Order: sequence, then C-alpha cells, then structure tokens
Amino acid sequence: MAISSFHPPVRTLMGPGPSDVNPRILEAMSRPTIGHLDPAFVGMMEETKALLQYAFQTENKLTMPVSAPGSAGMEMCFVNLVEPGEKVIVCQNGVFGMRMKENVERCGATPIMIEEDWGKPVSPAKLEETLQANPDASVVAFVHAETSTGAISDAETLVKLAHQYDCLAIVDAVTSLAGSPLKVDEWEIDAIYSGTQKCVSCTPGISPVSFSERAINKIQNRKTKVQSWFLDLNLVMGYWGSNAQRSYHHTAPINSLYGFHEALVILQEEGLENSWERHATNHNALKAGVEAMGLSFFVDEAYRLPQLNAVTIPEGVDEAAVRSTLLNSYNLEIGAGLGSMAGKIWRIGLMGFASNETNVLNCLGALDAVLSEMGADIRSGKAVSAAKAAYSE
Amino acid sequence: MAISSFHPPVRTLMGPGPSDVNPRILEAMSRPTIGHLDPAFVGMMEETKALLQYAFQTENKLTMPVSAPGSAGMEMCFVNLVEPGEKVIVCQNGVFGMRMKENVERCGATPIMIEEDWGKPVSPAKLEETLQANPDASVVAFVHAETSTGAISDAETLVKLAHQYDCLAIVDAVTSLAGSPLKVDEWEIDAIYSGTQKCVSCTPGISPVSFSERAINKIQNRKTKVQSWFLDLNLVMGYWGSNAQRSYHHTAPINSLYGFHEALVILQEEGLENSWERHATNHNALKAGVEAMGLSFFVDEAYRLPQLNAVTIPEGVDEAAVRSTLLNSYNLEIGAGLGSMAGKIWRIGLMGFASNETNVLNCLGALDAVLSEMGADIRSGKAVSAAKAAYSE
Repeated sequence: MAISSFHPPVRTLMGPGPSDVNPRILEAMSRPTIGHLDPAFVGMMEETKALLQYAFQTENKLTMPVSAPGSAGMEMCFVNLVEPGEKVIVCQNGVFGMRMKENVERCGATPIMIEEDWGKPVSPAKLEETLQANPDASVVAFVHAETSTGAISDAETLVKLAHQYDCLAIVDAVTSLAGSPLKVDEWEIDAIYSGTQKCVSCTPGISPVSFSERAINKIQNRKTKVQSWFLDLNLVMGYWGSNAQRSYHHTAPINSLYGFHEALVILQEEGLENSWERHATNHNALKAGVEAMGLSFFVDEAYRLPQLNAVTIPEGVDEAAVRSTLLNSYNLEIGAGLGSMAGKIWRIGLMGFASNETNVLNCLGALDAVLSEMGADIRSGKAVSAAKAAYSE
Repeated sequence: MAISSFHPPVRTLMGPGPSDVNPRILEAMSRPTIGHLDPAFVGMMEETKALLQYAFQTENKLTMPVSAPGSAGMEMCFVNLVEPGEKVIVCQNGVFGMRMKENVERCGATPIMIEEDWGKPVSPAKLEETLQANPDASVVAFVHAETSTGAISDAETLVKLAHQYDCLAIVDAVTSLAGSPLKVDEWEIDAIYSGTQKCVSCTPGISPVSFSERAINKIQNRKTKVQSWFLDLNLVMGYWGSNAQRSYHHTAPINSLYGFHEALVILQEEGLENSWERHATNHNALKAGVEAMGLSFFVDEAYRLPQLNAVTIPEGVDEAAVRSTLLNSYNLEIGAGLGSMAGKIWRIGLMGFASNETNVLNCLGALDAVLSEMGADIRSGKAVSAAKAAYSE
C-alpha cells in the first residue's frame, strides 16, 4: 500500500465555495487540541457565540455553530421546527429549495411548493397567495441567496408575510452571511443556518445557526421527539447553552472551531458593513470586466448577488474544458452550473477572503486568455483594464 | 466587543478523548484549502478510503469518513439500517448503549434492551436468549469498547450470534479503532462507526464508518426513505462511492479530512498490530503504577480496555478537585465518570499519540503528588518507579 502524506496544490478558489481561506484561519486550526469541556475551550465557545451574534446581527441566545456542514444546519432547522403532519411552504428558486422540500418530506410533513424560474428571486406576491390558500401552514422556508443561481430574495418582506399568517420563517443564509446585508433581529427571522466556507472564508464543515425565542418556544413544546438525536436542539442546548454546568452531548470539532473563531475575529476587525461593501466593490469590477469581454450575467442586476456571479456560457464553448484549463493551467477554480443550470452558467465566486482585486484581475485575465485560445466569440484584451478602471471610479 | 484571537493552553490529553494530536496532523490541517470536487481532493478521498479499509481490516467498498462527529456516525448506521416498526436488540453496558436506544426509538422502531452492569462486557448468553425470544428482531447493536466504563466486549461472538438469528450487527468502535484488535471482515460486522479523536489521535469532528454488502443490500431495498437527508447513504454514496462522476451532496470538511488522512498515514507507518501492542504496553505500565499507589481498576482485568482506564476513586477524595488541580497545575486532563459512573471513577485515557511512556510517567507522578497533598490514603512515591520497571520487563 504505502500511501504518503497529502500535499494539496495551491489553488485560487473562485467557485461557489469553499472560498480562499485566510492563512490566519489555517494557522489557528493547527493550534494544540484541548478538551471539549476544558474551561479554556468553554470560554472560546462563549466568544464564538458573541461573535456570531454580531455576524448574524442578532441577540438570539441560541446562536451557535453546528458541528457539521451547512446541509446539517438546514436539517437541524427542519427536524426541530417541523412536526409530522404539518404543512410547510417552501419557496423554490434553485437547487437548495429542492433540498428543503426533501427535508420537509423526511420530517413526515407536507411541502407546499412555490416554484420560481431559476435565477429569479422568490416572489412575495406568490407567497402571500399561497399563505392565503393554506391557512393551516405552520412554516415558510426560503433561500436568501441561492448559491445555484446567484439570485438574492427579499428576506425581510418574505419573513413579514410569513408572520402575518402565523408561520415561522426558516431562512437559508449559506451564501449571504457576511457577503450581503443580513439582519436576523430586524427582519425577525426565526431560524437561520449558514456555512463557514463562503463569505466567512473559513474551511468547510461547520454550520452557524440562530433561533428566535418564538422558534425555541415551538421546539420546547413539540408533541413528538425530534427525529435526529445528533441535531436535537433540546439536547444540543445543554452543551452550547449558557447554563453554568455544560453537559456532554457530542465531542465538538475543537480545531475546526478554532478556525471559525478566528474567521469571526477577522470579520469583526473588518466590520460587517465594510465586508458587505468590499463584496459589492469587487463584484462591480468583475462585472465591468465580464461585460467588456462581451459576456453577460444570468441574473438581472436588481437581484444579483455580488459574491456569486452566474455568467452565461457563450454559445459553442466547451464549458468543462474551460474550467479544467483554468484549474490545471492557472490553478484557478470556478464553478459549474448545478442541477438544471449545468452547461448554462459558470459560477464565479467572490467570497470572503477571495473577494479581492488580485483575484478579480487574475480571473478575468485567465478567462480572457482561455476563451480567446479556444476561439470563442468574445472581445479579447479588454476585461482586465475595464475591471481595473472600475476600481478607480 | 473586540474579541481577540484564541490561543489555547498546551494540555496533555489523557481523558476519554480527544487525545493528544500528533503535530504532523495539526500541520496537515493547516495546508491550503482546495475544492471538494477538485481532482486532487478526489484522489485524496480514494487514499483515505484505502487507508481506512486497512484500519478497519475490511474490504468493504462503502468505507469512508462521515463529515460529522461519532454521534452522527452512530445515527447514520441506525437511520439507514432500521426502518419504522422493526425490532432492534440493543445491548447496554454503559452510556453509549443508552444513546443507541434513543436512536432506535427516533427511527420509529422498538428497542429490546439487554442490560448489563456497567463495567461488565455484554453477555453472549443473554444475547442468545433475547434473540430466541424475539425471532422478529432485525438488528443487534452493541458497543465494542464502552468509553464510559472501559470494558471491552467480545464483538466476534456477538456478531456471530446476531447472524445465526438473521439479524444485522451494528457495532460502536469509537474507542476501539486502532487501540484494540478489531477485524471488520473476519468478524463479519455489518455496520461500524468510530471516532477520530480517540486511538486514531486526530482532531474530533469526523466519524469513520464501514458497511458490509449485506448492509448495503438492506439500505438499497428500504421500503421507506431514510429520515435524514444529510446521513442518507443512498445519497452519500454518490459522493464517496467509486463512480467515475462524483455528484455533489454536501461540502466535505476539506481540512479536517487532510488531518484524518495524515492520521491514517501515521497508523499505516506504525502498523496496526504495533499500535495495538503499544496501547497494551502503556496500559501495563500505568496499571503497575496505579496498583503500586494502592488504587484499583473498576473493570476486571479480563475485559479491561488498555486505552481507557477506569480507576476507582479512593474514598473521601474530592474527585473534581483532583481533576481541576491536574488541569490547572499540571496542564493534564483526565476524565470524570459519565452518567451513573460520575463520582465513582476517573477515566485515564492512553489513546493514540497520547499512549506513550512520558505521559504514563507524568500522569502517575502528578496523580501521586496531588493525592498525597490532599491526604488521600495511598502509598506515595511508588507509582512512577513501578511503571518505569514495568517497561523493562
């Protein structure tokens, strides 16, 4: 056998996540492991909660990182807030809305689907219609920033509608956290989950979540047990809650949490608003370059995410060959389309630490070169300088 | 607010896990993050599977690390292999058997409990009786090495019995993997889960699992959907399976998997049998010291785990004060008793990288000093030299 240590290539990560990780975070992850009940670790947990409250703009006490990836954070929201027999309205405008539907069904509940064209935001009008038609619905779920298309929805309005019709609101903020304005308390979101490997720029594997008092009240008064032991908030709260005596639930991923703590410290240093602004600035420069090349965006400007840029693939281009040339010859990762978007778009991420001028210019230069060599119908040699000019505006 | 970077104290981890992590693993975790669909990462996944097959002593194709802690590995086994309405025999001789019962109930199945005194191994005779009395049972579940008590059970015999009565066998090997002989194929185990933070000596957060053909067959022919989307093996297999075209399921915890890969490379370098032997040797030395001090073990020698030493707390000793003095004055973590063992035992781990002569001698020296200062009824000054002598035998 004799397998050796693994030394990864050094890539620039401009796909849909993971994004480039700040070296400070990688260094933090390599610090000595301590016990998950060590007072020093418990102190760090408290700091992490406070930093995460800031990132989510919430004072929710139940704000913490789940010890598993974003998909588990999604599942935690559904298995805790949905009981068998309930009706859940799921607004679907991409891949992750479909996953919500799967979650609802596996909870023994009935999903009421609102389907939007992919690339469009969720429609508040359709949500209101559906709420009126389903007065017995108990939960509304939607994706704030669809990673599969790059479209942002108006979370504040959607949550308000849900509440008007006595529904709790579950919000997927995997790609929006730290990249786009997101205000859990002001918008009165009841349950929210995110990921660490997008605009927080940490390594993947952890899912930050937050729950309102209204959500906790429902969880504590469930008629049935939560179907997942690992994700049962009634148990997890005993470990992450603020009770003096923490009780053991599972062994936390210590070193991954060192990294996440550091990522949140970095976010605090920059300031949340500055982070949002940086994502917008780099998006504008990328946009100038993409358009100078003669390419176009899949999503309308009004609801286009700055951190996830869906660029329409020009006709006749072998899109997989473009991506593999970028990866192999430029060490640059951009993303393919997911689900029904496969072959139609590239997804260029400008997330977290990866959202910077160097990446924007390098990506445009590489894309320009590769497409030109392939004989694609683009305007060559314009993209980089157009982007550079956008930074000076 | 202004929270700073976290710098953990440097501890020696001799509790029930996490154990001391080899610096090579910490360094591996800090290597540059790459994408979870990057060909370089996929190559590392294949190596990890091969290394894990070696560690589990299996050729099971479905052998992989789950992207979450051991509790999620346990849940993966139950939610995939147990359908609503089934009967599952759970052998309970400690905390983790109780957790299995919780899992069975949350799957909508009926647990048939076999209770043993804590500290005793699971009784094959009682299992056979229970199998005879419940011919409609479909699964038998037990813990190979109970982390809450330090007792090992005869997994080979228990699995054989399960098969004689047409049951699948789910085995918890969280604490045994790499520390005690464990042979998945030879013993014909159907589903096994473990942790990374025990005798594999990696950071916590990942759960290695393996499933036999018989188990996969049951999973692929389920009547109902697996209740967890995140843990549904029918979906996870699409990402970790050996099909040429990997499909995205969730974002793998890239850097944690770098660390796990390195931990398995280290295990391969040492050799599995050598690792088992090292755990036994260090246990024998610790035992010589503990007994020289006049303390005793909670578990009979015949089924005592070398990697998890349950030492009976001498009468009149404030056990929590002992642990906190060890932590604060010696930077040494040992474990408290869990569940009904609280206040009765200390759990001294000699797991993985932490299972070494320096740790054995330091721990005995510190324990001797702290107990003597507290006026406990022990024979002072004998432990370290007794352990040192044991190494020369």
